[in-house]
Order: sequence, then C-alpha cells, then structure tokens
Amino acid sequence: MTSSPAGRGRPRDERSGAAIIQAAAELVAEGGYAATSIGAVAARAGVGKDTIYRRWSGKPELVYEAVFTAAETADLPDTGTLEGDLTALVQSLVEEFSAPAAAAALPGLLADFAAAPHLRATIRTRFLQPAKERLVAVFDRAGQRGETSANLPVDLVLDTLAGAVFFHLGITGERPAPDLARRIAAMIVKGIEAR
Amino acid sequence: MTSSPAGRGRPRDERSGAAIIQAAAELVAEGGYAATSIGAVAARAGVGKDTIYRRWSGKPELVYEAVFTAAETADLPDTGTLEGDLTALVQSLVEEFSAPAAAAALPGLLADFAAAPHLRATIRTRFLQPAKERLVAVFDRAGQRGETSANLPVDLVLDTLAGAVFFHLGITGERPAPDLARRIAAMIVKGIEAR
Repeated sequence: MTSSPAGRGRPRDERSGAAIIQAAAELVAEGGYAATSIGAVAARAGVGKDTIYRRWSGKPELVYEAVFTAAETADLPDTGTLEGDLTALVQSLVEEFSAPAAAAALPGLLADFAAAPHLRATIRTRFLQPAKERLVAVFDRAGQRGETSANLPVDLVLDTLAGAVFFHLGITGERPAPDLARRIAAMIVKGIEAR
Repeated sequence: MTSSPAGRGRPRDERSGAAIIQAAAELVAEGGYAATSIGAVAARAGVGKDTIYRRWSGKPELVYEAVFTAAETADLPDTGTLEGDLTALVQSLVEEFSAPAAAAALPGLLADFAAAPHLRATIRTRFLQPAKERLVAVFDRAGQRGETSANLPVDLVLDTLAGAVFFHLGITGERPAPDLARRIAAMIVKGIEAR
C-alpha cells in the first residue's frame, strides 16, 4: 500500500488496525489461539505492541474482533422479506464460525472470556451490540411490512440464532449443510411472525 | 451406605459410579476444571483410578457426564402440550447450565473436546443422543395430538434449544430470567407447529 496524502485514503490508524486484525487472524489460523501472542501479532503487522494496546486491552478482545466481526461490515441484507434477511444474517454467522481462524480460536477464546469477569460483563453491551443493531434494523423493516408484531425479544432471538449456529458448528464440529442458515432462519421467522 | 446382600440394593458398580460422578462434580465446582484430575476424583470417591478408567476414557467424558446429564435421568415431561413439554426440557437445560459445577467446567471442557477429534466425532452419536431421544419422544406425542407435522428437524431443534441456552448462560454468563425456558420453548414451538 502506498502512503496517501493527508486527508485522502484511509487514515494511518485504520490501516495499522487492519494490518493488526489480519495478522491476528492469520496467526490464530496457523498456530492456534494459545500460541498467538500480542508480540507476534505486532511483529507480523509491523507495528509496536503499544499500538495494539492503545486499541485493544488484550489478546481475547483482539482475537475476537479478528475472527468474529467480519459479518458486521457486510452490507445489511435487504431482500424484501424477514425470512430472506434473517437467512442472510445467519449465513454470515455460519461463514464466520466455519472459517479456519474462528474454529482455531474458539476454545481458547471461550476459556479466556469465561475466566475474565470484566470481559464477560461487556459481552452483551460491547461484543454483541453490533449484531443486535443489525437484527433490530432487519426487524424494523419487517415490522413496517407487517411481518412481525411489536416488542420482539431481540436479545432472545440473537442468542437463539447465534447459539444454534455456534452449537451446530462450534460444539459438534460438523460441516454446515448448504441450507443450514435457511432452515434455522425459517424456523425462527415462523416462531416470531405476526399472525 | 451399608453393604447389601447379593441381588439386593444397587450393584457395586452403580454405587461406585455414583460416587465417582459426585466426586467429579464437587471437585470441578470447588477448584475448576483444570485443577480436577482423575487421581483426585478417585481419592475422593474412594476407588482406584483403574475403576474410573474402566468406565470413562478420560477426564472430559467423566466431567461431561458429571455436570451435564442430570436432565436425562429426570422423568420425561408429559404436560399434555408440546409447549409445556418443551418448556420443561429447556428448563432442565437451564438448570444444568446454571449449576456451579457446569459453569466451572464449561470453558475447559469445551477446549478439551475441541482439541480431541475422537471426542468431537462422538458428540452427536454419544453425548447428545440421550437428549435427542427425549426430544423425539416429546415430538412423537405432539404428532399424535396433531400439534406438529411429520419430519421435524430433530437435530436442528436440539441444536437450537441447547445453543440458545448455552449461548445465553454460557457465553454471556447472565443469570437466567425465571421465564427464559418458557420464552425459548414458545418461540420454537410456534416455529415448528403444524398449521
């Protein structure tokens, strides 16, 4: 990447952030979570460790962001139906959980999160918040179309969708069937639709 | 417990099995998964390590059985409706995941299972099979009442129910609301019912 004049292209922080995220994902996929260190990530990204610690408080947060937030930057689906939109959101989860870096990171990441009360306390307000916002936007449009009733249990639906994908892929380690996302979404849509 | 004449009371294997299970659950709740060893379980249960290894191939299987199979021995719910039966099954899961031993065991257990392909390969055929059989029995009765259509996706429903509870309690670490099981069951029942 060539450097850009000030005010054009991506700012330096954003570029180093992307390099750090990529380095973390690569290292986890290559060597596993336990063998990945902030020092190794810094070396591969070509930054100092202090640059990483300015943005992430430690390895769990960095690895979480590296392997589990790709879906948040994708365009919000707008297929015209709640079932279509939810299928797309669940498909993003399926792809995230199926990626080699995620599969390699998950057990160690869970153990670190479980052992750190300050991290667990922020899971819903920080780590799950972007996914919740996407779900709320999809529900809002469905409500305008009359597909859902008001007062949908957004947290419960989010936990159910994420839990179903996580359990199916993360616990049993099975490869996802091509129609997994559609089948999960169809069941949940029927479970929450207005009628 | 006083010894029983041959042919009366519980057989010796069953008694030592119960003592081993209880010792494993206690040790995990007290000291965590990592600090629990087969040797320590054997000492507390008053048996030799070989007695444990005759029945369990290692710590992950033993701890899994100690903290996650209580629901399998409860009476199968028969409330007269699919929603009532599923609420009872989900409530059992909520109670299992909320227990101190389960909360203490979960991260280490997941990591050990994830690292052992021979264990992961048997998760569905061995560890999830009793829960699936209970779900199938509940679905069969619901089908006879005309509440569900044939060909329900049992594995998918099981993954969704277990995943929702696991994600809600195991990942976020939140205390379960009193109506959590009912709300999850109601959504899934509506999602799979015949109409």
